[in-house]
Amino acid sequence: MLETLFTKIETMSAIQLRIEDKEYIKSRFQSRKMVKRQYLLHQGDVCRYIGYIVSGSCKMYSIDDKGHEHIIRLGVDGYWLGDYESFYLSAPSRYHIIMMEDTRLMLIDKKDLQELIDNVPAIDVLIKNMNIHCIISTQNRIHASISLSAEGKYNELLKTHPIFFKRFPQTMIASYLGISPETLTRVRRSQLSK
Amino acid sequence: MLETLFTKIETMSAIQLRIEDKEYIKSRFQSRKMVKRQYLLHQGDVCRYIGYIVSGSCKMYSIDDKGHEHIIRLGVDGYWLGDYESFYLSAPSRYHIIMMEDTRLMLIDKKDLQELIDNVPAIDVLIKNMNIHCIISTQNRIHASISLSAEGKYNELLKTHPIFFKRFPQTMIASYLGISPETLTRVRRSQLSK
Repeated sequence: MLETLFTKIETMSAIQLRIEDKEYIKSRFQSRKMVKRQYLLHQGDVCRYIGYIVSGSCKMYSIDDKGHEHIIRLGVDGYWLGDYESFYLSAPSRYHIIMMEDTRLMLIDKKDLQELIDNVPAIDVLIKNMNIHCIISTQNRIHASISLSAEGKYNELLKTHPIFFKRFPQTMIASYLGISPETLTRVRRSQLSK
Repeated sequence: MLETLFTKIETMSAIQLRIEDKEYIKSRFQSRKMVKRQYLLHQGDVCRYIGYIVSGSCKMYSIDDKGHEHIIRLGVDGYWLGDYESFYLSAPSRYHIIMMEDTRLMLIDKKDLQELIDNVPAIDVLIKNMNIHCIISTQNRIHASISLSAEGKYNELLKTHPIFFKRFPQTMIASYLGISPETLTRVRRSQLSK
Protein backbone atom coordinates (compact mmCIF):
# COMPACT_ATOMS: atom_id res chain seq x y z
CA MET A 1 0.00 0.00 0.00
CA LEU A 2 2.85 2.36 0.84
CA GLU A 3 4.60 1.95 -2.50
CA THR A 4 1.44 3.11 -4.31
CA LEU A 5 1.39 6.24 -2.14
CA PHE A 6 5.11 6.92 -2.66
CA THR A 7 4.68 6.62 -6.44
CA LYS A 8 1.72 9.02 -6.32
CA ILE A 9 3.73 11.57 -4.30
CA GLU A 10 6.74 11.32 -6.64
CA THR A 11 4.57 11.63 -9.77
CA MET A 12 2.55 14.59 -8.52
CA SER A 13 5.53 16.47 -7.04
CA ALA A 14 8.10 15.48 -9.71
CA ILE A 15 10.54 14.98 -6.81
CA GLN A 16 12.14 11.65 -5.97
CA LEU A 17 11.72 10.60 -2.34
CA ARG A 18 14.83 9.71 -0.35
CA ILE A 19 14.81 6.64 1.92
CA GLU A 20 14.53 8.88 4.99
CA ASP A 21 11.58 10.78 3.41
CA LYS A 22 9.80 7.46 2.89
CA GLU A 23 10.39 6.43 6.49
CA TYR A 24 9.09 9.78 7.69
CA ILE A 25 5.98 9.62 5.48
CA LYS A 26 5.37 6.01 6.60
CA SER A 27 5.45 7.13 10.25
CA ARG A 28 2.78 9.80 9.65
CA PHE A 29 0.23 8.14 7.33
CA GLN A 30 -2.13 5.54 8.77
CA SER A 31 -3.17 2.56 6.68
CA ARG A 32 -6.84 1.62 7.00
CA LYS A 33 -9.00 -1.10 5.48
CA MET A 34 -12.67 -0.22 5.27
CA VAL A 35 -15.60 -2.32 4.18
CA LYS A 36 -18.39 -1.49 1.75
CA ARG A 37 -20.99 0.86 3.34
CA GLN A 38 -18.60 1.92 6.12
CA TYR A 39 -18.46 5.68 6.82
CA LEU A 40 -15.25 7.69 7.06
CA LEU A 41 -17.19 10.88 7.87
CA HIS A 42 -20.67 11.78 9.07
CA GLN A 43 -22.45 15.09 8.37
CA GLY A 44 -21.88 17.37 11.40
CA ASP A 45 -18.53 15.85 12.38
CA VAL A 46 -15.16 17.46 11.64
CA CYS A 47 -13.27 15.79 8.77
CA ARG A 48 -10.07 14.81 10.61
CA TYR A 49 -8.32 13.06 7.73
CA ILE A 50 -7.37 13.54 4.12
CA GLY A 51 -7.03 10.13 2.51
CA TYR A 52 -5.41 8.55 -0.51
CA ILE A 53 -7.46 5.73 -2.05
CA VAL A 54 -5.11 2.79 -2.71
CA SER A 55 -7.97 0.65 -3.97
CA GLY A 56 -11.75 0.77 -3.79
CA SER A 57 -14.18 3.65 -4.15
CA CYS A 58 -16.23 6.14 -2.14
CA LYS A 59 -18.70 8.97 -2.42
CA MET A 60 -18.98 12.26 -0.54
CA TYR A 61 -22.55 13.57 -0.36
CA SER A 62 -25.02 15.71 1.52
CA ILE A 63 -28.64 15.01 2.43
CA ASP A 64 -31.05 17.93 2.11
CA ASP A 65 -34.16 18.75 4.18
CA LYS A 66 -36.30 16.61 1.89
CA GLY A 67 -34.03 13.59 2.30
CA HIS A 68 -32.51 13.92 -1.17
CA GLU A 69 -28.88 12.95 -1.68
CA HIS A 70 -26.44 15.26 -3.53
CA ILE A 71 -23.06 13.83 -4.52
CA ILE A 72 -20.30 16.43 -4.39
CA ARG A 73 -17.34 14.08 -5.00
CA LEU A 74 -16.66 10.55 -6.16
CA GLY A 75 -13.36 8.78 -5.59
CA VAL A 76 -11.68 5.66 -6.98
CA ASP A 77 -8.17 4.17 -6.80
CA GLY A 78 -5.54 6.90 -7.07
CA TYR A 79 -7.88 9.71 -5.95
CA TRP A 80 -7.65 11.78 -2.76
CA LEU A 81 -10.68 12.10 -0.54
CA GLY A 82 -11.85 14.37 2.25
CA ASP A 83 -13.93 17.49 2.87
CA TYR A 84 -11.24 20.16 2.54
CA GLU A 85 -13.42 22.90 4.05
CA SER A 86 -14.03 20.91 7.23
CA PHE A 87 -10.42 19.61 7.31
CA TYR A 88 -8.72 23.00 6.92
CA LEU A 89 -11.17 25.08 8.99
CA SER A 90 -11.83 22.35 11.62
CA ALA A 91 -15.53 23.07 11.01
CA PRO A 92 -18.44 20.60 11.10
CA SER A 93 -18.84 19.00 7.67
CA ARG A 94 -22.05 19.16 5.69
CA TYR A 95 -21.10 15.87 4.02
CA HIS A 96 -20.99 12.13 4.60
CA ILE A 97 -18.19 10.01 3.13
CA ILE A 98 -19.10 6.35 2.60
CA MET A 99 -17.19 3.49 0.99
CA MET A 100 -18.88 2.06 -2.11
CA GLU A 101 -16.66 -1.06 -2.11
CA ASP A 102 -14.16 -2.62 0.31
CA THR A 103 -11.53 0.11 0.27
CA ARG A 104 -7.90 0.50 1.31
CA LEU A 105 -6.91 4.02 2.39
CA MET A 106 -3.83 5.87 3.57
CA LEU A 107 -4.99 8.59 5.97
CA ILE A 108 -3.27 11.61 7.47
CA ASP A 109 -4.50 14.20 9.95
CA LYS A 110 -3.91 17.97 9.82
CA LYS A 111 -1.07 18.11 12.35
CA ASP A 112 0.90 15.30 10.72
CA LEU A 113 0.26 16.71 7.25
CA GLN A 114 1.61 20.12 8.30
CA GLU A 115 4.69 18.42 9.78
CA LEU A 116 5.32 16.60 6.50
CA ILE A 117 4.78 19.81 4.49
CA ASP A 118 7.32 21.61 6.69
CA ASN A 119 9.94 18.87 6.49
CA VAL A 120 9.58 16.97 3.19
CA PRO A 121 9.89 19.19 0.08
CA ALA A 122 8.07 16.60 -2.07
CA ILE A 123 5.02 16.79 0.21
CA ASP A 124 5.05 20.59 0.13
CA VAL A 125 5.04 20.51 -3.69
CA LEU A 126 2.50 17.66 -3.73
CA ILE A 127 -0.03 19.65 -1.69
CA LYS A 128 0.52 22.80 -3.77
CA ASN A 129 -0.01 20.82 -6.98
CA MET A 130 -3.01 18.93 -5.58
CA ASN A 131 -4.63 22.23 -4.61
CA ILE A 132 -4.02 23.75 -8.04
CA HIS A 133 -5.35 20.59 -9.70
CA CYS A 134 -8.40 20.73 -7.44
CA ILE A 135 -9.04 24.41 -8.31
CA ILE A 136 -8.77 23.67 -12.04
CA SER A 137 -11.09 20.66 -11.97
CA THR A 138 -13.70 22.37 -9.77
CA GLN A 139 -13.62 25.49 -11.98
CA ASN A 140 -14.21 23.26 -15.01
CA ARG A 141 -17.05 21.50 -13.22
CA ILE A 142 -18.69 24.84 -12.36
CA HIS A 143 -18.30 25.98 -15.96
CA ALA A 144 -19.94 22.76 -17.20
CA SER A 145 -22.68 23.17 -14.62
CA ILE A 146 -23.62 26.75 -15.60
CA SER A 147 -23.02 26.54 -19.35
CA LEU A 148 -23.95 23.05 -20.59
CA SER A 149 -27.22 21.20 -21.20
CA ALA A 150 -27.80 17.84 -19.42
CA GLU A 151 -26.39 16.11 -22.53
CA GLY A 152 -23.35 18.40 -22.55
CA LYS A 153 -22.68 17.72 -18.85
CA TYR A 154 -22.93 13.97 -19.46
CA ASN A 155 -20.48 14.12 -22.40
CA GLU A 156 -18.05 16.30 -20.46
CA LEU A 157 -17.97 13.84 -17.54
CA LEU A 158 -17.59 10.92 -19.96
CA LYS A 159 -14.54 12.70 -21.40
CA THR A 160 -12.94 13.81 -18.11
CA HIS A 161 -13.84 10.89 -15.79
CA PRO A 162 -14.72 7.83 -17.93
CA ILE A 163 -13.84 5.63 -14.94
CA PHE A 164 -16.92 6.88 -13.06
CA PHE A 165 -19.21 5.26 -15.65
CA LYS A 166 -17.54 1.88 -15.07
CA ARG A 167 -17.52 2.04 -11.29
CA PHE A 168 -20.73 3.82 -10.25
CA PRO A 169 -24.43 3.25 -11.01
CA GLN A 170 -26.38 5.67 -13.20
CA THR A 171 -28.34 7.12 -10.26
CA MET A 172 -25.05 8.25 -8.69
CA ILE A 173 -23.80 9.73 -11.96
CA ALA A 174 -27.09 11.70 -12.23
CA SER A 175 -26.72 13.04 -8.66
CA TYR A 176 -23.08 14.01 -9.32
CA LEU A 177 -24.17 15.91 -12.44
CA GLY A 178 -27.06 17.59 -10.61
CA ILE A 179 -29.66 16.17 -13.02
CA SER A 180 -32.56 13.80 -12.39
CA PRO A 181 -32.15 10.04 -13.09
CA GLU A 182 -34.99 10.39 -15.66
CA THR A 183 -33.06 13.10 -17.52
CA LEU A 184 -29.94 10.93 -17.50
CA THR A 185 -31.91 8.00 -18.96
CA ARG A 186 -33.25 10.29 -21.71
CA VAL A 187 -29.73 11.57 -22.50
CA ARG A 188 -28.32 8.03 -22.67
CA ARG A 189 -31.18 6.87 -24.97
CA SER A 190 -30.60 9.86 -27.22
CA GLN A 191 -26.84 9.07 -27.35
CA LEU A 192 -27.42 5.38 -28.15
CA SER A 193 -29.79 6.24 -31.01
CA LYS A 194 -27.16 8.52 -32.65
CA MET B 1 -2.38 51.10 -4.33
CA LEU B 2 0.56 49.22 -2.82
CA GLU B 3 -0.57 49.71 0.76
CA THR B 4 -3.90 48.01 -0.05
CA LEU B 5 -2.00 45.04 -1.48
CA PHE B 6 0.35 44.84 1.51
CA THR B 7 -2.60 44.88 3.92
CA LYS B 8 -4.28 42.09 1.92
CA ILE B 9 -1.12 39.97 2.00
CA GLU B 10 -0.63 40.50 5.74
CA THR B 11 -4.29 39.73 6.51
CA MET B 12 -4.45 36.58 4.38
CA SER B 13 -1.07 35.21 5.49
CA ALA B 14 -1.23 36.40 9.13
CA ILE B 15 2.43 37.40 8.70
CA GLN B 16 3.69 40.95 9.03
CA LEU B 17 5.76 42.13 6.07
CA ARG B 18 9.22 43.56 6.74
CA ILE B 19 10.35 46.71 4.92
CA GLU B 20 12.60 44.64 2.64
CA ASP B 21 9.68 42.26 1.84
CA LYS B 22 7.59 45.28 0.80
CA GLU B 23 10.37 46.58 -1.44
CA TYR B 24 10.73 43.15 -3.02
CA ILE B 25 6.97 42.76 -3.59
CA LYS B 26 6.83 46.29 -5.02
CA SER B 27 9.54 45.40 -7.53
CA ARG B 28 7.62 42.37 -8.80
CA PHE B 29 3.98 43.51 -8.98
CA GLN B 30 2.94 45.85 -11.80
CA SER B 31 0.35 48.51 -11.18
CA ARG B 32 -2.15 48.95 -14.00
CA LYS B 33 -5.10 51.26 -14.56
CA MET B 34 -7.74 49.87 -16.91
CA VAL B 35 -10.86 51.50 -18.27
CA LYS B 36 -14.40 50.15 -18.41
CA ARG B 37 -14.83 47.55 -21.22
CA GLN B 38 -11.05 46.98 -21.51
CA TYR B 39 -9.94 43.32 -21.70
CA LEU B 40 -7.23 41.80 -19.53
CA LEU B 41 -7.58 38.42 -21.27
CA HIS B 42 -9.08 37.11 -24.50
CA GLN B 43 -10.38 33.56 -25.04
CA GLY B 44 -7.57 31.54 -26.71
CA ASP B 45 -4.72 33.56 -25.17
CA VAL B 46 -2.63 32.40 -22.22
CA CYS B 47 -3.52 34.16 -18.94
CA ARG B 48 -0.12 35.67 -18.08
CA TYR B 49 -1.12 37.48 -14.91
CA ILE B 50 -2.88 36.95 -11.63
CA GLY B 51 -4.23 40.26 -10.43
CA TYR B 52 -5.39 41.89 -7.24
CA ILE B 53 -8.29 44.30 -7.68
CA VAL B 54 -7.49 47.51 -5.75
CA SER B 55 -10.70 49.15 -6.96
CA GLY B 56 -13.23 48.52 -9.70
CA SER B 57 -14.80 45.31 -10.96
CA CYS B 58 -14.50 42.68 -13.68
CA LYS B 59 -16.05 39.52 -15.03
CA MET B 60 -14.50 36.33 -16.39
CA TYR B 61 -16.71 34.55 -18.91
CA SER B 62 -16.86 32.19 -21.87
CA ILE B 63 -18.89 32.46 -25.07
CA ASP B 64 -20.41 29.21 -26.35
CA ASP B 65 -21.07 28.08 -29.95
CA LYS B 66 -24.45 29.78 -29.91
CA GLY B 67 -22.97 33.11 -28.80
CA HIS B 68 -24.27 32.80 -25.23
CA GLU B 69 -22.19 34.22 -22.40
CA HIS B 70 -21.43 32.17 -19.25
CA ILE B 71 -19.92 33.99 -16.26
CA ILE B 72 -17.52 31.81 -14.31
CA ARG B 73 -16.19 34.51 -11.95
CA LEU B 74 -16.98 38.03 -10.83
CA GLY B 75 -14.51 40.27 -9.06
CA VAL B 76 -14.71 43.50 -7.08
CA ASP B 77 -12.30 45.49 -4.85
CA GLY B 78 -10.26 43.13 -2.69
CA TYR B 79 -10.74 40.09 -4.95
CA TRP B 80 -8.09 38.27 -6.98
CA LEU B 81 -8.65 37.66 -10.66
CA GLY B 82 -7.23 35.40 -13.35
CA ASP B 83 -7.84 32.06 -15.06
CA TYR B 84 -5.80 29.77 -12.79
CA GLU B 85 -5.92 26.84 -15.24
CA SER B 86 -4.42 28.90 -18.06
CA PHE B 87 -1.98 30.67 -15.71
CA TYR B 88 -0.60 27.55 -14.04
CA LEU B 89 -0.61 25.26 -17.10
CA SER B 90 0.38 28.02 -19.59
CA ALA B 91 -2.56 26.77 -21.68
CA PRO B 92 -4.90 28.83 -23.91
CA SER B 93 -7.78 30.15 -21.82
CA ARG B 94 -11.40 29.46 -22.61
CA TYR B 95 -12.34 32.74 -20.93
CA HIS B 96 -12.38 36.48 -21.49
CA ILE B 97 -11.70 38.88 -18.62
CA ILE B 98 -13.22 42.34 -19.07
CA MET B 99 -13.39 45.34 -16.75
CA MET B 100 -16.93 46.35 -15.78
CA GLU B 101 -15.78 49.74 -14.41
CA ASP B 102 -12.57 51.77 -14.50
CA THR B 103 -10.36 49.43 -12.49
CA ARG B 104 -7.01 49.59 -10.71
CA LEU B 105 -5.08 46.33 -10.61
CA MET B 106 -1.82 44.99 -9.21
CA LEU B 107 -0.60 42.26 -11.59
CA ILE B 108 2.07 39.61 -11.31
CA ASP B 109 3.29 37.00 -13.81
CA LYS B 110 4.13 33.35 -13.08
CA LYS B 111 7.91 33.74 -12.93
CA ASP B 112 7.80 36.71 -10.55
CA LEU B 113 5.13 35.04 -8.42
CA GLN B 114 7.29 31.92 -8.05
CA GLU B 115 10.25 34.09 -7.07
CA LEU B 116 8.18 35.80 -4.38
CA ILE B 117 6.85 32.44 -3.12
CA ASP B 118 10.42 31.14 -2.83
CA ASN B 119 11.75 34.21 -1.03
CA VAL B 120 8.96 35.85 0.96
CA PRO B 121 7.32 33.53 3.55
CA ALA B 122 4.19 35.72 3.69
CA ILE B 123 3.65 35.23 -0.06
CA ASP B 124 4.13 31.47 0.22
CA VAL B 125 1.47 31.33 2.97
CA LEU B 126 -0.76 33.80 1.08
CA ILE B 127 -0.86 31.60 -2.03
CA LYS B 128 -1.47 28.44 0.02
CA ASN B 129 -4.35 30.14 1.87
CA MET B 130 -5.75 31.67 -1.33
CA ASN B 131 -5.78 28.24 -2.96
CA ILE B 132 -7.52 26.61 0.01
CA HIS B 133 -10.04 29.48 0.11
CA CYS B 134 -10.62 29.04 -3.62
CA ILE B 135 -11.16 25.26 -3.23
CA ILE B 136 -13.65 25.82 -0.41
CA SER B 137 -15.66 28.48 -2.24
CA THR B 138 -15.75 26.54 -5.54
CA GLN B 139 -16.80 23.35 -3.72
CA ASN B 140 -19.63 25.31 -2.07
CA ARG B 141 -20.63 26.75 -5.43
CA ILE B 142 -20.75 23.27 -6.99
CA HIS B 143 -22.80 22.00 -4.07
CA ALA B 144 -25.27 24.88 -4.51
CA SER B 145 -25.36 24.24 -8.23
CA ILE B 146 -26.21 20.52 -7.98
CA SER B 147 -28.40 20.61 -4.89
CA LEU B 148 -30.41 23.85 -4.86
CA SER B 149 -33.39 25.20 -6.77
CA ALA B 150 -33.05 28.52 -8.63
CA GLU B 151 -34.44 30.27 -5.53
CA GLY B 152 -31.98 28.41 -3.27
CA LYS B 153 -29.04 29.39 -5.50
CA TYR B 154 -30.16 33.03 -5.44
CA ASN B 155 -30.46 33.06 -1.63
CA GLU B 156 -27.08 31.35 -1.20
CA LEU B 157 -25.35 33.95 -3.38
CA LEU B 158 -27.16 36.74 -1.56
CA LYS B 159 -25.76 35.32 1.69
CA THR B 160 -22.19 34.64 0.51
CA HIS B 161 -21.62 37.53 -1.93
CA PRO B 162 -24.16 40.32 -1.19
CA ILE B 163 -21.76 42.79 -2.85
CA PHE B 164 -22.47 41.22 -6.27
CA PHE B 165 -26.10 42.38 -6.09
CA LYS B 166 -24.99 45.97 -5.52
CA ARG B 167 -22.34 46.04 -8.22
CA PHE B 168 -23.63 43.89 -11.09
CA PRO B 169 -26.86 43.90 -13.16
CA GLN B 170 -29.42 41.11 -12.80
CA THR B 171 -28.55 39.58 -16.19
CA MET B 172 -24.98 39.00 -14.97
CA ILE B 173 -26.17 37.52 -11.67
CA ALA B 174 -28.39 35.12 -13.65
CA SER B 175 -25.49 34.05 -15.88
CA TYR B 176 -23.24 33.55 -12.83
CA LEU B 177 -25.91 31.34 -11.24
CA GLY B 178 -26.46 29.39 -14.47
CA ILE B 179 -30.15 30.28 -14.62
CA SER B 180 -32.10 32.27 -17.21
CA PRO B 181 -32.82 36.00 -16.65
CA GLU B 182 -36.54 35.12 -16.75
CA THR B 183 -36.11 32.61 -13.92
CA LEU B 184 -34.18 35.18 -11.89
CA THR B 185 -36.98 37.74 -12.38
CA ARG B 186 -39.52 35.13 -11.21
CA VAL B 187 -37.40 34.31 -8.13
CA ARG B 188 -37.03 38.00 -7.21
CA ARG B 189 -40.78 38.63 -7.61
CA SER B 190 -41.53 35.63 -5.42
CA GLN B 191 -39.08 36.92 -2.77
CA LEU B 192 -40.54 40.42 -2.81
CA SER B 193 -44.07 39.12 -2.36
CA LYS B 194 -43.08 37.12 0.77
